[in-house]
Amino acid sequence: MRVEIVAVGTELLLGQIPDTNSQWLGEQLAAHGISSHFHQHVGDNHERIVAAFRVALSRSDAVIVCGGLGPTQDDITRAALAEVMGAALERQDYLVERIRAMFAGRGRPMSDNNLLQADVPVGASVIDQVRGTAPGLICPVGSQVLYAVPGVPYEMSEMFTRAILPDLLDRVRAEGQTSVITSRVLRTWGASESGLAEAVGSRFDELEGSERVTIAFLASGIEGIKVRLTARGDNAEHAKELLAAEETVVRSLITDAFGDVIFGVDAEAMEDAIASRLSARGLTLALAESVTGGLIASRLVNVPGASNWFKGSVVSYASDIKFDLLGVTPGRVVSGLAAEEMARGVRTLFGSDVAISVTGVAGPDPLDGHAPGTVFVGIAVGDEISHVELRLPGDRPRVRSYGAIGALNVLRQAIDRIL
Amino acid sequence: MRVEIVAVGTELLLGQIPDTNSQWLGEQLAAHGISSHFHQHVGDNHERIVAAFRVALSRSDAVIVCGGLGPTQDDITRAALAEVMGAALERQDYLVERIRAMFAGRGRPMSDNNLLQADVPVGASVIDQVRGTAPGLICPVGSQVLYAVPGVPYEMSEMFTRAILPDLLDRVRAEGQTSVITSRVLRTWGASESGLAEAVGSRFDELEGSERVTIAFLASGIEGIKVRLTARGDNAEHAKELLAAEETVVRSLITDAFGDVIFGVDAEAMEDAIASRLSARGLTLALAESVTGGLIASRLVNVPGASNWFKGSVVSYASDIKFDLLGVTPGRVVSGLAAEEMARGVRTLFGSDVAISVTGVAGPDPLDGHAPGTVFVGIAVGDEISHVELRLPGDRPRVRSYGAIGALNVLRQAIDRIL
Repeated sequence: MRVEIVAVGTELLLGQIPDTNSQWLGEQLAAHGISSHFHQHVGDNHERIVAAFRVALSRSDAVIVCGGLGPTQDDITRAALAEVMGAALERQDYLVERIRAMFAGRGRPMSDNNLLQADVPVGASVIDQVRGTAPGLICPVGSQVLYAVPGVPYEMSEMFTRAILPDLLDRVRAEGQTSVITSRVLRTWGASESGLAEAVGSRFDELEGSERVTIAFLASGIEGIKVRLTARGDNAEHAKELLAAEETVVRSLITDAFGDVIFGVDAEAMEDAIASRLSARGLTLALAESVTGGLIASRLVNVPGASNWFKGSVVSYASDIKFDLLGVTPGRVVSGLAAEEMARGVRTLFGSDVAISVTGVAGPDPLDGHAPGTVFVGIAVGDEISHVELRLPGDRPRVRSYGAIGALNVLRQAIDRIL
Repeated sequence: MRVEIVAVGTELLLGQIPDTNSQWLGEQLAAHGISSHFHQHVGDNHERIVAAFRVALSRSDAVIVCGGLGPTQDDITRAALAEVMGAALERQDYLVERIRAMFAGRGRPMSDNNLLQADVPVGASVIDQVRGTAPGLICPVGSQVLYAVPGVPYEMSEMFTRAILPDLLDRVRAEGQTSVITSRVLRTWGASESGLAEAVGSRFDELEGSERVTIAFLASGIEGIKVRLTARGDNAEHAKELLAAEETVVRSLITDAFGDVIFGVDAEAMEDAIASRLSARGLTLALAESVTGGLIASRLVNVPGASNWFKGSVVSYASDIKFDLLGVTPGRVVSGLAAEEMARGVRTLFGSDVAISVTGVAGPDPLDGHAPGTVFVGIAVGDEISHVELRLPGDRPRVRSYGAIGALNVLRQAIDRIL
């Protein structure tokens, strides 16, 4: 069973809104072990919608169509479905009554446009509307099927879960396919995408052509490199076992090559890794940020409960703030020594258990004899002060963003090592 | 000239990441008057990528392919392009040298995988890599063309603007389409999308069906509401005149309805509006951030030359930092008084001309008797201290982000009023 998603709407082509529906549906299908090989976007044009449906039916078994079921002149999905089915549109009296009743119930006048939503291709069945006014449609085409749902995410998701997913799972079972897919993302910082690929290369080659397990790499900029493991099992339990076994293999390949670069799984961000470590140990944190300009603080405060362990930050952008407020020795402000003094200074100022500091060169010009991308991270844990030098690629915003997550990674490793 | 966008990556089908590339490219093509009728997503599978390219070439004149150009085993776009072109892949020595030099420059070892990025289909030309390691490709297929760019948004957008857009515009001109499209975005903060649409409604109706000028609204979250004016002229001069005339009309409709809500044009962000005002007057700025947690500082330091006017920020997340370091009267920390004391305190601490502060409730629970979304902005200009109360919608990250741009907007208006 291969399902294609076709999102209808000129606003998607013009980039006026993001297509969150295809992403959500893709996630749902994958979670239920249903394959999806293609998505399409098409505008509000009859011939082109019909063409998109025909392409989808030529390469997929089922199609989920989002959008174009509303009451306005540019809602033309129903007519396109009828054409692909080779069927006429018929107005359904019970739907007319239901739409009228819905408006009456809300005490709002109804324009006749709304009755377009009662038109159903002959041979299609209706997915009752629960959250909006437009019914969904299930349109068989031979042994294939087109499902149509409104583009409003809140209406789409309800109809998918209630009517489309059960119908798809019935079809999957009828095909005799009962496998279940599950996946896990390992979040890494500190190894390159190509380095990870090489470290996992032998395993990747072993799995070549495997129907059971796959590995994929995803460079995610300031969120690091993600390694996605996907397992297809005969049932949920089997899929889980395959995934766990694969995770053990891949974790050890990565750790052997790069050490402690896996900071979390799935949606865990670097700041979550910091939060769990500080909370578990009952420690508080303060920051002194120069080159990162507040980015580290702004990531940390997004963690729920941050006020339990985060005291705050001094963004010491001007040098005199470093000297006067943080007690840095006047002189060069980009150095390991300055980073250490900043960390010590802000730890004292804020009375925290742990402090980190960041000073460096965002570029484009060198500073204090250091090339752009040079960043010093100072760490104060109790009275123990140290620093780490990072070399980061990219322009100013990239150096800052990489510096922020890089500094948090230094802190993560320091906590694990020292505390 | 009809351009189709094909985004390559299994992670898009699985819904693991949103496809921001197609949206951005759609916006860019529309802004330059180039039609796009279809988008596709396809996974990292050779046969299916080839199939998607063939479908695209059957219904569009040019195809922009995003993703699958990286150094790992699942980066297979190059081979699919070669197959559609009916050409072999050849490793280019000068690209090998360039990739080696790039790694050497960063002092990082290079795994041999990276050399895959030097493979080019015979007959294709290369878009030099500026921001990453993977070059882009321009692949002619008869009179049609496939452009391939990396999936990393930051690399994709640079290559599109530098190499693909000019090539597309050349093709449009070669087709004999000589009209020139130009557009301008008015950036607003403080009016709703429906409010702006109503204010501009009469003009919108006058332009109904116009081939010359169009107005579109684009809600852009924490960047405010954008109003895009597009003019199609017989030549560049004519388009410019039409656009300037339209801008005058629309600006006055918006300003009459909402006052000073237009803070910039095109790519000008709120922080640029602040930077130009402070630089012009030779003033320095300091911040005290509580609920925004460093977000304001991190926006400001992205402006080139920020060190000329930005002193720094105290992110006073814990209450005792507000009391001890900023001199806020112990007690409630979410109030207009606390905001004023924070602004006064940080202005004194950092010795700046101007200071602003932000304290508020990100939610989900009320604090100090204030509902989530309540944010107080304190402003200290010399010895003149005042505050403004904002009411912001959304969850915690939204309240923070809206609070950051909202506070900068308060500062912008205060500078214009007072200084």
